[in-house]
Parts: sequence; structure tokens; C-alpha cells
Amino acid sequence: MKNITFINNKFVKHSNAKISIEDRGFLFADSIYELISVFDNNAIDTDQHLDRLESSLKEIKIKYKFNKNKFKKVFEKLIKVNNVINGYIYIQITRGVAERKHEFPKNYSPTTIVFTKHLNIDKKIYKNGVKIITIEDLRWLRRDIKSTSLLPNILSKQIAVEKNAFESWLIDDGVITEGSSSNAWIITNSNTIITHPANNKILKGVTRETLIKILKKNNFKIKEKPFNLIEAKNAKEAFLTSSTLSVLPVVKIDNYNVSNGKPGDVTKKIINLYNDYIFKNKSSISKELKIA
Amino acid sequence: MKNITFINNKFVKHSNAKISIEDRGFLFADSIYELISVFDNNAIDTDQHLDRLESSLKEIKIKYKFNKNKFKKVFEKLIKVNNVINGYIYIQITRGVAERKHEFPKNYSPTTIVFTKHLNIDKKIYKNGVKIITIEDLRWLRRDIKSTSLLPNILSKQIAVEKNAFESWLIDDGVITEGSSSNAWIITNSNTIITHPANNKILKGVTRETLIKILKKNNFKIKEKPFNLIEAKNAKEAFLTSSTLSVLPVVKIDNYNVSNGKPGDVTKKIINLYNDYIFKNKSSISKELKIA
Repeated sequence: MKNITFINNKFVKHSNAKISIEDRGFLFADSIYELISVFDNNAIDTDQHLDRLESSLKEIKIKYKFNKNKFKKVFEKLIKVNNVINGYIYIQITRGVAERKHEFPKNYSPTTIVFTKHLNIDKKIYKNGVKIITIEDLRWLRRDIKSTSLLPNILSKQIAVEKNAFESWLIDDGVITEGSSSNAWIITNSNTIITHPANNKILKGVTRETLIKILKKNNFKIKEKPFNLIEAKNAKEAFLTSSTLSVLPVVKIDNYNVSNGKPGDVTKKIINLYNDYIFKNKSSISKELKIA
Repeated sequence: MKNITFINNKFVKHSNAKISIEDRGFLFADSIYELISVFDNNAIDTDQHLDRLESSLKEIKIKYKFNKNKFKKVFEKLIKVNNVINGYIYIQITRGVAERKHEFPKNYSPTTIVFTKHLNIDKKIYKNGVKIITIEDLRWLRRDIKSTSLLPNILSKQIAVEKNAFESWLIDDGVITEGSSSNAWIITNSNTIITHPANNKILKGVTRETLIKILKKNNFKIKEKPFNLIEAKNAKEAFLTSSTLSVLPVVKIDNYNVSNGKPGDVTKKIINLYNDYIFKNKSSISKELKIA
């Protein structure tokens, strides 16, 4: 199967897509990224992801000629040539190649890469729900920037996998902030849906944002406020969100069953509402390009 | 001038040293590094750096066949072919190339790169001392691991440069931990030399460790304990240490002169002692290889 990747304005064979060992993305994690889900050949929430990409660039002060439509055309081309039915688009931008010095180079041309992947997520995890564990949140204090400084995230995820869990929820100052690569949600016994507020302590997930809009529109009670481990374990239901996973039921927290240890009814409704949203909005890229 | 780099067991032209965009060092900062100074063609404190490299690998659980003597031979070869008189050796090891997933790949072969650089540090900074600024320490809580998750460090350094300062000293919970790429030291009015203790809040610098030994041997009063900004501004003298900079006088903290704003006598003595150490120990690599 063909695998074409976009790197610095060129489309190349994925296996030929290489960067210099002096790229600041490699030496310093001086780089930011986005991951956009593809369902049925269509990229989901592209505008929101590109807006966040642009905002991450600004936060770490990478000077970049940002062109949203150009990115969309690259995505469309890659989805087509790589025949991505279900999968994702990965975008990473670094401050480019320069002699290794901590401070920014005076002049630089950023490195841009875009590649796609096929994904085949096991449907069972939605039916049965997943187990998560909780561990200390050791990450830096600008988690709102989607940077590739991800070592604490991967170490947290690995601890989960080694404990036969799907994900780690991270605890900072007594409060569950989010997962190592997902946002964390609980539903109280009075059917209030709670997730950590979007501040410097978490990444403001695109799926999280979309879901909040959907829930509000459908008159769910929703509160963006911190919750602790006891509240999580006593919750009626729990779930996590991410761009690749959408809405995924959490049925076990640290070996403690959430309610009866099965995906709850409210979560199931939320999954259906989110899936409806995806089916209605899936052709957003092509539509917009026709207008442009 | 020739520039040869070691990458995955091969010596290649530096400009040809490239890595896959799916290297976990690039995608996740799943990688650790060392930087060894070269003075007069000789690598300084090689064993200590290699010991720390090995310990960093263990901390982030990269499975690696670590061979100290092999590294030393690579260093010796690169210093020779690249004719490095004054400069440094940079070593980076990543968890290798794998499809992008947070958890560790089941099987992987780590990526190893070693390159050298020439350095010509302006002698004036030692004669005049440097200015530092202080800013909040936003980094993660395993700063004892020398990982390439360095985005907070480079952003801190950049703030210093934009304020015409040489370095940023980072403040965590009221206490100065260290600089963005150096360790921080003060000398009190009673001639006690103070630096932050080596715990998870700082990187245990090799130059820091070597200097502590030298100072103890020479009967200086030294305390490894936290100090705050007021203590720093009221200090008699201040300096910073790093592998490339050795011992560098700090004469201004946030626009506040340290004593009279000139390098102090104790600091000058310390610089001389450290330089003596370098001259006495500089041929450590070649000596050891002859024994081995």
C-alpha cells in the first residue's frame, strides 16, 4: 500500500521522510503537533485542530507562515493517495535545524511534517469499557501547549500498560487533571458530567471541546471543575475522550469498579450523540475547499 | 573541515546523519543525552558522563547494551577525525523507530548518535561575569533525568537572552533550583558556598559534582541546601557551572548587583582550582583506553 508523507513542502515516500539530527524538534523537543482523526475518509474537527496548532506555534514563539487552506489541501491529498479510511493525520512543526544552542536561532526555517496512519480500533473496548489507573502528574506546568515534550506522558502510559490498564489518569495536588493522552470525565449520581477546567494544568482537547458543545446543546448538566480520586471512584459513570478514541467508557479505576463495572447508560447516550456529530460533520474538509 | 558523526554504529558525514520522522526521540522526546566538554583535544569527566547516561537509560527504561569502552573509542575517534581542540561531544540515545503509540514498542532498537562541535567561548564572560534573571520553574518533576524533553529549558533560556541576560535561574516554590542549562551557586558573607541539593528538582551536573569534590578537598565550607532569591541577591558572590562553561561568575541577578557587580575573589579561586583539575585530568580517555 502506498504511504506518502509531506515534509517541508514535498511529498515523499514515508520511508524516505527523514530529518537532520540537528533538528530542534529532535534535540530539544522544540516542537508542537496535532493529531486529527479520520473516519470514513474524512478528517474530523480540522478547523479546531488547525486553530490549536496555530495557537501552539504562538505560545512557543515559532515564527511560521500559517496557511490553513494549504494544510487542508495537504490533508486531502494524503487521505486520498494513502487511502486512509479510518486513521489519523499527524502534523508536527519544529523550530527547524540549527547548531545546538538552547536559545532560539536568529534565523530559522521551521520543519513541517504531515503523515497519515491507518487505525483499526477494537470495537470491544467501547462495549466493555476500559480500566484506568491513577498516578502522580509529574508534567510541566504548560500542559495547555500541545508540545512534543512528551516523555512524562509516555512513561505514564507505559505504567498503565504494565498494569494491564488502558490509560493512566494523572493526579496533581489531589485532583485528577487528565489522562496521559486523553481527557478524563466522570458522571455523578445526580447526572452531572464533570471534567477538569481548561487551564494550564490540562490540554484543552478538541474532542473535549466538541463534546461540551454537544452536551450543552442536548441539555446535559455539565460542570468544568476539578474532581478528586474519591469523587471518581464514587462516580456513577466515567469515560475518557481523545481524537482517536472519541468517547470511551471507563469501568474500573485502580481496581475499583465504577458502579457495576459496566459502561453506563448516560455514557452510552453520549457515545451515540458524539457518533451522530461525526457522521453529520465528516465531510467538512471537502465542503470548505469547494467554497474556498 | 571534516565533520564525521556516529549514528547507529556507522561513521557518516555529519550532513548525512538523519533520523526517521518516526523516531521516538523526535515524536515524543523519548530520549536522553549527554554533553561532554573537550579541552585541548581531551574529553573531560568522561566516566561520570557515561555513568549518568547509563543511569538515565535505566530511569526511562530504554533497554540498551551499554558498553562504556565502545563509547570511549567512538569519542576518541571523533575528536581525532574532526580535530576537536576545544568543543564538546554530544551523545543522544532514543527508544528508536516505531509506529507512533505512547506506550513502549514491544521490540525496538535504540537510536544512538554521537557528534562533536567546536566551541570558542568568549574569555570576556569569565573576566566580567554575567547577568542572570530569575523566572518561574515550570519544568516536570524528574529533572534529575537528563532527557531531551527540554522545551521549558529552551523557553527559559530564550527569555534570558531577550532580556540581555546570559542565563535564567529558575524558582520553584520560593527556591532557586538551577539554571536552564547550568547549576546555580552562591557564596554567603561568611564564605559558605551553597548550591541546591541533588534531588528530583535539579539535574545533578557532572561539573557540579566534580566541583563539590574539589572544594571539599580544598577545605571550603560547602552546603548543599536550597536558597531563595533574597539570599541570592544578598550573597557575597555567585556563579554558575556547566560542562561547557566550567565555572562562570554571576555578577548581576535581576538587575541587582551581586556585591560590587564584579567577579569575587572566592569565585576566582574556584575557577583556578577547577582549571587546575581540567589540566591534570584532561588525558583521562587515552590513559584508560591504554589500560583497557
